[in-house]
Order: sequence, then C-alpha cells, then structure tokens
Amino acid sequence: MHVADLETPALLIDLDILEHNLRRVADYTQAHGLRLRPHTKTHKTPAVGRRQLDVGAVGLTVAKVGEAEVMLGAQPPDLLVAYPVIGASKLERLMKVARKTRVTVALDSLFAGRQLSDAARAAQVEIGVLAEVDVGLGRVGVSPGDELVQLAQGLQRLPNLRFEGITFYPGHIKDHGEQGRQQLARLGELIPCMLADLRRAGLPVNVVSGGSTPSLYHSHELPGLNEIRPGTYVYNDLNTVRSGGCTLDGCAASILLTVVSTARPGQIIIDGGSKTFSSDRSVNSSENSFGYLVEAPGAVFHKMNEEHGYVDVTRAEHNFRVGDRIHIIPNHVCVAVNLHERVYGVRGEEVEEVWTVEGRGKLQ
Amino acid sequence: MHVADLETPALLIDLDILEHNLRRVADYTQAHGLRLRPHTKTHKTPAVGRRQLDVGAVGLTVAKVGEAEVMLGAQPPDLLVAYPVIGASKLERLMKVARKTRVTVALDSLFAGRQLSDAARAAQVEIGVLAEVDVGLGRVGVSPGDELVQLAQGLQRLPNLRFEGITFYPGHIKDHGEQGRQQLARLGELIPCMLADLRRAGLPVNVVSGGSTPSLYHSHELPGLNEIRPGTYVYNDLNTVRSGGCTLDGCAASILLTVVSTARPGQIIIDGGSKTFSSDRSVNSSENSFGYLVEAPGAVFHKMNEEHGYVDVTRAEHNFRVGDRIHIIPNHVCVAVNLHERVYGVRGEEVEEVWTVEGRGKLQ
Repeated sequence: MHVADLETPALLIDLDILEHNLRRVADYTQAHGLRLRPHTKTHKTPAVGRRQLDVGAVGLTVAKVGEAEVMLGAQPPDLLVAYPVIGASKLERLMKVARKTRVTVALDSLFAGRQLSDAARAAQVEIGVLAEVDVGLGRVGVSPGDELVQLAQGLQRLPNLRFEGITFYPGHIKDHGEQGRQQLARLGELIPCMLADLRRAGLPVNVVSGGSTPSLYHSHELPGLNEIRPGTYVYNDLNTVRSGGCTLDGCAASILLTVVSTARPGQIIIDGGSKTFSSDRSVNSSENSFGYLVEAPGAVFHKMNEEHGYVDVTRAEHNFRVGDRIHIIPNHVCVAVNLHERVYGVRGEEVEEVWTVEGRGKLQ
Repeated sequence: MHVADLETPALLIDLDILEHNLRRVADYTQAHGLRLRPHTKTHKTPAVGRRQLDVGAVGLTVAKVGEAEVMLGAQPPDLLVAYPVIGASKLERLMKVARKTRVTVALDSLFAGRQLSDAARAAQVEIGVLAEVDVGLGRVGVSPGDELVQLAQGLQRLPNLRFEGITFYPGHIKDHGEQGRQQLARLGELIPCMLADLRRAGLPVNVVSGGSTPSLYHSHELPGLNEIRPGTYVYNDLNTVRSGGCTLDGCAASILLTVVSTARPGQIIIDGGSKTFSSDRSVNSSENSFGYLVEAPGAVFHKMNEEHGYVDVTRAEHNFRVGDRIHIIPNHVCVAVNLHERVYGVRGEEVEEVWTVEGRGKLQ
C-alpha cells in the first residue's frame, strides 16, 4: 500500500525516524547505566512497545489499568503503573495483569497503598510499589523529607507489597535555558538528600525512577537516578521541538490531510480539527499554531473546529487547491495518537505497518 | 447496575435531561414549521440518533463518511453529510451508504461537486447536494451573491446530483447579547437576498438549512430558513451555558471521576485530564476552567495533563479525600464524548443504558 492510497486524515509514523529515536535513547541510557522504562501513553500500541523492549528497555510504563491490559501484548518483562489505582474492580483487573507479568505501582497515599495491599493479598500476588514524590511539578507526590519517609515506611509494612523505591515526574522542567538548568541542579541536590533520609530510616531503595522527554539527555547529571520513563521521544512533536528536546527531523509523526475548501481567499480548510489533533496549544511559545505544515512552513494553522482546520496561507510558499494533500506535525502527539484508530508506519511513500492504537480510550 | 459500580472516568448521560432536551427542540421546530436534522457529531451513537428521529427529526446530519456508515444503525430516512467528501475511496464508501438511505452532501466547490457526480454516476445512484455559503464564520462556503449563484448553477448541471438548496453554519453567533442580536438580524436580511438571487437564476431551492445550538431558538426569526441542524443541544455543556443556549440543569452529560491524590494542600488530583475531557477551553468567558464540579461549584478545575486533572479546592465547599467521586460537567461535550468508548445513560443512581460511542474516531 502507498501513502497515496490512504484516506485522510491519517496519522503517519516515519519508520526511519522512529527507529533512530528508539536507538538514540537506548544508546544514551546504556552509555550511562540508566534503566529505560518508556511510558507507552504516547503510542498506546503494543507493537511499538515491543520495539522499545527489543532495543533494550527493561520494562514498560502505563498510566491506567486498561493500558496495562493492552500492553501485555508487547510481552513486557514488567510493567510500571505510574498512577495510583483506586477502586475494587480496577484493582481486581490489575491483579489479573500481575498474574501475567511483574507489576509495580507508583502511589502517594497510604489509602491507595492499603487498597492495593488488600487486593494483592486476596489475589495472592506480590506487587511492587514506588513512593511518588513531588519534585516541583505540584501534581501528585508527597513532599521530600518527613512526608516521603512516612509514606515509604507505611508502604513497607503493608502485606503483599514490595517497596522498591521512589519515583517522580520532573514535568516542570520544560526548557534547556537558564531556568531549566537551575531546576535540574536543584533536582540533582534533592535526590541524594531523599536517599539519605530513607537510608537513615532503614529503607532500602532499589529504584529511583524519573525522567521526562524534555529533560531526557540530562538524566545522567542527576546523582542517584537509575531509571527513566520518557514517553514522547518515540514519536516526538512540535512541543518537544519547542522545548529543545529534539529538532524537526526527529519528529516521526505527522498527520496527512486533504484540503477540502479554498473558498475564502488566503485561507485553506483541511479535513482535520480538534477531533484529529486535539486542542493542545503550543508550549514554551506565544505562537498561535496547532501544527507545522511540512509542505509550507510559512502557512499558519491558527484555528480549529472539530473537523475543520483553518490555515492562513497568505504567507505560504505554496498555492493550494481543493484535493491537495499536506502533512502536519502536531503540537502534542500523545493526545493526537489517542484520537486515531490506527497509525501507519511508512518508509518513503510505502506503508509498511498498520498499527491499531489498541490503548486508545483506555481511560480506566 | 448502579453508578457506584462504574469505574472512573465514566461519561454519564442523565436520561431525564436528555429526554427533556430532545422534546424541547422537537416541540420548538414543530411549532415553527422547521425541519429538524440534528448533527450527530455530539453523541456519535446510533441509539441516540434513533431517539432524535423518534421525537420528530426528519433525518440526521454527519460530518464524515465514517460517521454516515455508523449512523445507518439509527435507520435514518435520510442523511446529510455536512462536509465536502474528497477522494475516490471515500466517495465509493459514500455510494454504498447511498444505496441504503437517501444521501445529501453539502459542498462549496465544483471540484467536490464533479468528484461526487462522477462517483454517483459510476454507482448509478442520485445524491442530493446543498451549496454551502459562508454567512460570517469564515470557514467553508462561498460568498453570497454571484459566487453562490455560480456554484448552484454548476451543481445543477452535474449528472446524478439533485440540487436541493443552500446550507450555512452560523457558528459565529455565540451569544444572546447585542452582538448576537445584530448578527442574527444581518442573517435574517441575507437569506431572502440569496433566495431572490437563486430564483432570478432559475434555481429552485427546497432546502435552506442552518442552525447551530447557540442560535437555535432564534431560528424562527430567520425568514426563509426551513431546516436546522443543532448538535450540542442533545447533551449540552458548559460552553452552551456560557453562550446562553441553556442553563446548568439542561446539561445531560457529566463525567464521573475519582480523587486519586490529595498530597498537595488546597489541591486535589482527579483521574481524568486532556484524554478524558479534551483540552477545549471555555468560550465567551475569561474563566480558566475545564469544567464545573457539581459537588463543589467553588472548586476550580484549572489545569490538565493527559490523565491528571488539577482542581484548586481552597474555595470549595467540600473536604475531599482520596477515593471520593465527583461529577464534572465538561466545557465541550462533543470532543469529550469522542474520547470515550462508552457512555452510560443513568436515571438517578441506576444505569439504564450502556451505549458504545460507535462513531468515535471515525475521522475519515
């Protein structure tokens, strides 16, 4: 099948770029003795998870139990659920996953820990746990210091749980400028302090898990960190470019679209909007743009409705007609992939792979 | 099944409110002799389309061929594809739909018209066409006047097409204040002029199709308009409330969520973010909010990541704990529904209906 045979909108993955991205991060983590446990929320596709494992990932990360169930298809040696699992029926499902592969859960409350322990005991399985600590994003996670020690101590005492260590998500570090450097330096001081606190409390720490895509290649500068969980790096997107995490030629994902209207001078309407791209805006930029037009970088994709994209072509290098096809690199690939039933792995004009996004909509 | 048995996040539809919304619009259109052809993009669910037909809709509207295929499940007497269909394989699929029900397509170019005519001739079917005109939104549609007459004349000459009339989407009318009134008045003057132009050119106009949810109850004030295609009214959402199209008690859809973290004082984290709600912001408001917390209207849902919602509870009426469940009315229900595999029709605490969102992700 050729790209020309695909109906639009279609989400394409350039396989050469994908393979380069996978290899680059695998090489980096191997060179620095870091374990790589990619977050699969970006691709939600077992075949891609398998490729991550094949180049050296030690396991995979998911956010939801439904994603864990799907990602068993990649046959991971273990799965980290980087999310507190709350509620009896979800925990029952998680225990079924734990009968098939080793499972670890990140959580920040003893409430979640006790529910997990009860479910593990009832199912007669052992579940790993990581204490989630907030290192600056202000989302989930207890504060470093006493709160962390208390959480870790509490978790260690709960039956059928195996306390593995700590986890954090440095999602507040979004640039490689002065601010990003200062935030990294603070994190580099914080980790050894947290480890010393836990050591003093007699708590063994095997795992120190962090790492997002923007801060990825600084992971080796953080003493004590031994595992990273980047997600977006697999496909990359315009927001990764804006944060300095890659360049445009590292973006494996683009959306193929058709021009459906040129009725208004200076504007084209394309057959994808917020149900194709998501409404995610640009980060680290005042740019009002929902994507980068590969065929006409001067065009501005400035507005969307659900199924319509509005592109200002007054400064475009290209004269568009109804029926023309264009490629757009999205702002945020993780939410865009989640809107597509399938993605197409392409090499040049050849479609080599058709992957169902099996984890799409697995919210629970 | 009870609501308490549902895993979260779950999209609930209050069936009493849904039925009230369906009945109210049906009564309004009947009272004013308007044909009702609801846009099904909001629910993407044949069972809900069937309910719209059962209370008097003359047919259904879709945006994409994939939605048309799904919506055949509602057994509509006819389907309007309110979108130019471009590309041979999509048109082939549309012709298969046209063998099962009467199909009309809205388009704004002779390019799209010729492709449609060729496909209809090859399939030996007749397809209705509406000339799309831009009445102020600046999206698709030719300009009123000569452009419209030329498009209509061109369409009328094409084989296997049945020219039915004109269509427009008054999506620029978003409020009931002075601006909205002026925009409606201008549209009220424009429609008779367009009809006179077409009459002079010898073009019969059976259908004048317009109508969005915010301007819905002003449709009878527009002389010549004989059909409306509201979508959002079926469930309504916070943006409909903000535009004056309904009140909070007209919102049938809410998302049930669980508090998964209270680690940070003054904040709760809920188990839904941009993959549950979409990132659509509030319209007609400077409010930085992604939804309305039914249990605590003073709480501010101000930030999202993909699977995390950040709610500021410093001014909330409620003291939340991990494991608590809350209901949130989303900003934009059409994009939220498209993220869910199923929606649950509830009456009180009883789950009466489980509907698969069959049109979810039907982008093509």
